[in-house]
Amino acid sequence: MSMILDIAKKAKEASCKIAGISTAVKNDALRMMAEALEQMKDEIIEANERDVAKAREIGLKEALIERLMLNSTRIDGMIKELLALVDLPDPVGNGTAIKRPNGLTLLKQKVPLGVVGIIYESRPNVTSDAAGLCIKAGNSVILRGGSEAINSNKAIVKALCQGLEKANLPTYCIQLIEDTNRERIQELFQMRDYVDVLIPRGGSALIKNVVENSRIPVIETGEGNCHIYVDEFADLSMAKSILINAKTSRPSVCNAAEKLLVHEKIAHAFLPEALQELQNFGVEIRGCERTRKIYPNVVPIKADDWSIEYLDMVIGVKVVDSIDEAVEHINRFGTGHSEAIVTKDYERANLFLSGVDAACVYVNASTRFTDGGEFGMGAEIGISTQKLHARGPMGLDELTTTKYLILGNGQVRN
Amino acid sequence: MSMILDIAKKAKEASCKIAGISTAVKNDALRMMAEALEQMKDEIIEANERDVAKAREIGLKEALIERLMLNSTRIDGMIKELLALVDLPDPVGNGTAIKRPNGLTLLKQKVPLGVVGIIYESRPNVTSDAAGLCIKAGNSVILRGGSEAINSNKAIVKALCQGLEKANLPTYCIQLIEDTNRERIQELFQMRDYVDVLIPRGGSALIKNVVENSRIPVIETGEGNCHIYVDEFADLSMAKSILINAKTSRPSVCNAAEKLLVHEKIAHAFLPEALQELQNFGVEIRGCERTRKIYPNVVPIKADDWSIEYLDMVIGVKVVDSIDEAVEHINRFGTGHSEAIVTKDYERANLFLSGVDAACVYVNASTRFTDGGEFGMGAEIGISTQKLHARGPMGLDELTTTKYLILGNGQVRN
Repeated sequence: MSMILDIAKKAKEASCKIAGISTAVKNDALRMMAEALEQMKDEIIEANERDVAKAREIGLKEALIERLMLNSTRIDGMIKELLALVDLPDPVGNGTAIKRPNGLTLLKQKVPLGVVGIIYESRPNVTSDAAGLCIKAGNSVILRGGSEAINSNKAIVKALCQGLEKANLPTYCIQLIEDTNRERIQELFQMRDYVDVLIPRGGSALIKNVVENSRIPVIETGEGNCHIYVDEFADLSMAKSILINAKTSRPSVCNAAEKLLVHEKIAHAFLPEALQELQNFGVEIRGCERTRKIYPNVVPIKADDWSIEYLDMVIGVKVVDSIDEAVEHINRFGTGHSEAIVTKDYERANLFLSGVDAACVYVNASTRFTDGGEFGMGAEIGISTQKLHARGPMGLDELTTTKYLILGNGQVRN
Repeated sequence: MSMILDIAKKAKEASCKIAGISTAVKNDALRMMAEALEQMKDEIIEANERDVAKAREIGLKEALIERLMLNSTRIDGMIKELLALVDLPDPVGNGTAIKRPNGLTLLKQKVPLGVVGIIYESRPNVTSDAAGLCIKAGNSVILRGGSEAINSNKAIVKALCQGLEKANLPTYCIQLIEDTNRERIQELFQMRDYVDVLIPRGGSALIKNVVENSRIPVIETGEGNCHIYVDEFADLSMAKSILINAKTSRPSVCNAAEKLLVHEKIAHAFLPEALQELQNFGVEIRGCERTRKIYPNVVPIKADDWSIEYLDMVIGVKVVDSIDEAVEHINRFGTGHSEAIVTKDYERANLFLSGVDAACVYVNASTRFTDGGEFGMGAEIGISTQKLHARGPMGLDELTTTKYLILGNGQVRN
């Protein structure tokens, strides 16, 4: 039996066990997992140092190394995330009930999804965040992180499994695929009988690979080519502050703005000052022709750029003739993540809200708020950009499915 | 541009238009669609006669011809289904709202999925049922029925589009792929940019083809290898009536029982009479060795049989040692559709309800109740046997997704 098949089978087995476990025991496990991270801190940091050294050796970009790096503070953050899950309500078992005229009672109950596969990149904190969420929602989890973080991930999973053991839960509830061979992961994609959902977290190439090759249902997450549309009727100072926040507060995340669309009627009044300030923050500006007529000191944008998520201090700028053009542009080039309009006009706001096809559509606020914590759902497993099952930030609820329990006393159908 | 790409693009365009249409206008369209079916009844029956003649010519099984056949009564049934949708509540626009501490208002609103593709087999009533549901939920629909029903489907879609036109909705909201070439459908599977979900309805080969080849998210429906487990503590007369109902009331549908599991302690008391009665109804019985020792007058079952959905007057029978064996057998060979236990014991009932991993789990009732109408949701687009997005009968709610509308007054994130 292949290693991945073995992992998948054990995950299925473990999922049947953890599905019925009480909230109290799952919370115990989370506390034990947090405790084990604390106890194994040195070991985890040492493993991470090996990953970082290797990354430097092969010349990984400094931004990626920054993501990969763990220290005591970052591990404390992971511990805090696990403990925060203890306080979140357990969705499992909740539901609704109806009585049918024939006397049947129908209970539609939330139950764990079963086996969740998470495929992610270099940030090792995802390992414990995702595992914690899956455990709290009663799922077993198969983790497959990036090759560059393999030693860190092994050490973290070792700690998490010690926590499971102390709480008397099967350690197979959390498994790491240690083989980071790119071909090998294709095997996992076929295991529809054992894995209930795959959640890719990472860049567009990773997501595309999962979406195109997986026969297991996928929840597409995280690609965010987000737009700020500054309408003719915008409060320009509000528009500037939203733009600066959305672009510069954390450019490497999916809810950061990647494009600015500006109504032609306010382009002259808005662009020079706003673009100058973006440049003061160190943002590279790529502008359309009309943008460059108003503010020449920017790079001409290429046609390909409109669909690119930079994840960097870069922004594309376009002057549009109308709100309709803005909405069409967003629906054509956006990734269905987070889109914002800045306007004082009621009708324009409504047009944008109903016309834009995305998980999160904002009026007069920064796209950076698209986040499980900011939405009040506690931690998140990712941000869905697809329409099936979940859309937008996904928390514990989105890691469950439903089951109908039907209670009868001998009913048969005519 | 290929025909299918053209259809997909037009469907996307139409979906943007119908998404914002009021319930009143969508209801008008449903009434007009029903009226057009009434007016074009003769034309539809004539087209259907051509399909039936062709089916006879190529030697299609009588059971399939029976499914394919339309007459005035059956068209009246289709009309009634469309009109029943008028009375169902429109899910679009409903939702929940929360206010965040920073003053942002988050509205989580139900919105149409967008473009729904339905791939189905010979029953032409699916054409109008599915189209009606999609329209009511604000979606555009791409229909791809079986080649044997092509003339019937063309005539039905012609009528439905006349209805749309009279209600001033774009006719591209309902499109039929007239090319029934099996290779051509693969093209549709790639059109992730235009089609939001594919719902296959039909036999396991059709479902497998869609699941394995589609890059568009799929909702798997309808395969039902359903079990009746008669527990040691069953009321035997109730068990017999549930078994007979689940197996014989409509053997060709997905919620019919395909397998009987019997606890060894009541096997002698239950099997002879129950199997005799099944045989009186004309059911072919395939039994395990232990079944044949108790009731020899049955065919020996083959190992393959345990995972087969017969959709016919055939049942597989197995004597099991325990409820655990029953649950394991069901989780291993079942399709996650509908499973039933007959028992008077509270603990056994609970073990079965929590242990069986299926969309619908019954205590003391026939599996035949798994149906949108019986569950009180009105019409259904199919019965989901997967865990993502929807599980069990899918009605209008399941043809929507959600969208977060976030209303701010200048909020930026720290």
